[in-house]
Amino acid sequence: MIGMSQCQVPPSPELHPALERRFSPVIFRSDVDVTADHVDALLDAARLAPSAGNSQPWSFIIGRRGDRVHSRIVRHLARSSAAWAPAASAIVVNLAHVHVEGTADWEYSEFARYDLGQAVAHMTIQGLAMGLDAHQFRAFGREAVADEFGVPPHWEVTSMTAFGVAAHAAGEVPSMSTSRARSARDEITWARA
Amino acid sequence: MIGMSQCQVPPSPELHPALERRFSPVIFRSDVDVTADHVDALLDAARLAPSAGNSQPWSFIIGRRGDRVHSRIVRHLARSSAAWAPAASAIVVNLAHVHVEGTADWEYSEFARYDLGQAVAHMTIQGLAMGLDAHQFRAFGREAVADEFGVPPHWEVTSMTAFGVAAHAAGEVPSMSTSRARSARDEITWARA
Repeated sequence: MIGMSQCQVPPSPELHPALERRFSPVIFRSDVDVTADHVDALLDAARLAPSAGNSQPWSFIIGRRGDRVHSRIVRHLARSSAAWAPAASAIVVNLAHVHVEGTADWEYSEFARYDLGQAVAHMTIQGLAMGLDAHQFRAFGREAVADEFGVPPHWEVTSMTAFGVAAHAAGEVPSMSTSRARSARDEITWARA
Repeated sequence: MIGMSQCQVPPSPELHPALERRFSPVIFRSDVDVTADHVDALLDAARLAPSAGNSQPWSFIIGRRGDRVHSRIVRHLARSSAAWAPAASAIVVNLAHVHVEGTADWEYSEFARYDLGQAVAHMTIQGLAMGLDAHQFRAFGREAVADEFGVPPHWEVTSMTAFGVAAHAAGEVPSMSTSRARSARDEITWARA
């Protein structure tokens, strides 16, 4: 019962296939490399995400497997994520602008993490459009990463995203991760470092 | 210089058109209705978004223009959003599960708002796939909405999203919003109620 004249809203909407099939792999193909152009496209997708008052409270550190930034990231992974994330084609460190510079209490934006989550989501959708799966995680040393890259104290090292091509299908539980994967939708690992 | 064998990562990646053209309209067509099927597709997109430990710390209240929930939502909009949001086909209230039930201090998840942001992003991408633009905003009475719908205190009424078909193009600055729109990417209104 759609009361539309010329507009394009389909009467029988279907879930977008990329959103439907998306999952967080725990095994990535280690023979897939991404280029600087792929990284630029991921960053563009994040850059164009909406944010409160266009505050864009996000920043990213990106390492491609084999480069120096990547090696500086992976040394701070917890044992759990170190078992699978380094094989991915790239790791993105996701940072939120949580405080006004020079203060520890003044929020930069009450939506800093909300907006970062959106930007990361846009980035992962762009990844899917390029054939790249993504797995976000929190199993790393937050302070160690901040020290490694000189992250200023008004920024938070919130999460990381591994991008690459999955080596297993959604719902398939690889033997290395049986204790962690509860379902096809549920293997997202956020254990603390 | 891509070192891939069989995988599908394109060598010259382009930004996904939906992410590229996305903007936050300030005028929606008031002659476009959406159905319960559209709402279900939006909710499915959010439901399948990733979250920390699959905690899914989100909840949504959805009103379609003309229904009773919609009228209960719009009465709590601030003057700024009341000028444009009610014309949209639907308004979604986005809630974050911020505390453990019965406590005011224990976080349910440190990623509650981050994950909500992701789920809302997935919802807006699904909207784009159905021809629906989206405009998120914070210009409403947070406590009044919580009271209206009996939102328990361990949940936060974080933001709202208006979904509909834009009545103007990205970059076009409608006269009603000249003071607010700073650029084509920058018209997102998060002013407090």
